[in-house]
Amino acid sequence: MNFLEEKILSDGTVKQGNILKIDNFLNHQIDIGIIRQIANELKRRFSGVDVNKVLTIEASGIAIATMVGNLYDVPVVFAKKSETANSTDDKYVSQAYSFTHKRMNSVFVSRPYLHPTDRVLIVDDFLADGQAVHALIDLVHQAGGEVVGIGIAVEKGQQKGGQLLREEGYRLESIAIIEDMDWQAQTIRFRKEKSSQL
Amino acid sequence: MNFLEEKILSDGTVKQGNILKIDNFLNHQIDIGIIRQIANELKRRFSGVDVNKVLTIEASGIAIATMVGNLYDVPVVFAKKSETANSTDDKYVSQAYSFTHKRMNSVFVSRPYLHPTDRVLIVDDFLADGQAVHALIDLVHQAGGEVVGIGIAVEKGQQKGGQLLREEGYRLESIAIIEDMDWQAQTIRFRKEKSSQL
Repeated sequence: MNFLEEKILSDGTVKQGNILKIDNFLNHQIDIGIIRQIANELKRRFSGVDVNKVLTIEASGIAIATMVGNLYDVPVVFAKKSETANSTDDKYVSQAYSFTHKRMNSVFVSRPYLHPTDRVLIVDDFLADGQAVHALIDLVHQAGGEVVGIGIAVEKGQQKGGQLLREEGYRLESIAIIEDMDWQAQTIRFRKEKSSQL
Repeated sequence: MNFLEEKILSDGTVKQGNILKIDNFLNHQIDIGIIRQIANELKRRFSGVDVNKVLTIEASGIAIATMVGNLYDVPVVFAKKSETANSTDDKYVSQAYSFTHKRMNSVFVSRPYLHPTDRVLIVDDFLADGQAVHALIDLVHQAGGEVVGIGIAVEKGQQKGGQLLREEGYRLESIAIIEDMDWQAQTIRFRKEKSSQL
């Protein structure tokens, strides 16, 4: 088991409805040591990949993206969410369904912050159905840039986001992939993958 | 002039309505070198102050707070915003008027992430009327903790937030304080303060 899988087992809680609650160290309170390790591990997994921008989406992706950007010493862009936004001369806009808010959100980045020369590493804390990541990919492509990798802290392997992205040919690295979890027994089983053997 | 004042003059734009647009390096695209310098400078200004938690508010405060938390090696908590939230057994709630959205927002932190023993450094990218910072102070006090300092990147000195906080006795450090700005001439004048002489 790697450091993040161990942390999830020791500090996480499984809630009814397939919910993993780890906001005590990842996305409300941030355990800075863990975020630092996540950033280091993503950089290690993407070694040899030329990255000139890190892209995430507000709000909970920002902490990891900042630490990753700090390691690469490249700009970090966070896409913003809005209930209503249209593509204009000054911004790229895509759409993502929010399961939290049960509505479509517009996701946008101001045009000057994405370029055709960009080699973008997309970073986020969670990957489930992949709605947010697909919107971020769309924004990069609208700008003519390239997505060189997708780095995720926790992937919910029972949901289809990770599988879709891999089938689409993206290089996706998730540090912990949850195979299944049981809220009554409070058990979590992680996927064994070559890339997650540390 | 310090590094942040220079950066604002070189990369910022003044818009009609007393708006300083610096989302090209501070709060949409993040210039990681500048954020690193902001964190270092805040740590320098609060040297000798015992800090065991960094608190900010989503979304644009998270990048600076993460870098500050990384320097102090302490947990970072970001308060969440919601149109509707009530105090419950599991969270502390305060209120802040959002000038961006022209409505009252609830600002909340889950109870387990603020403690009576906390010595909190509040960090944010902007300080204007001080609504967000006052809500964060209120949350810390509800938990019985102490606010040991408030570290801000850019303070809009024409608005009353900074003055109020200083009158209330808080130790407030703003790296750049804007005295006035003129969108037609594109000029910005910074306040000369002892604490901003680097």
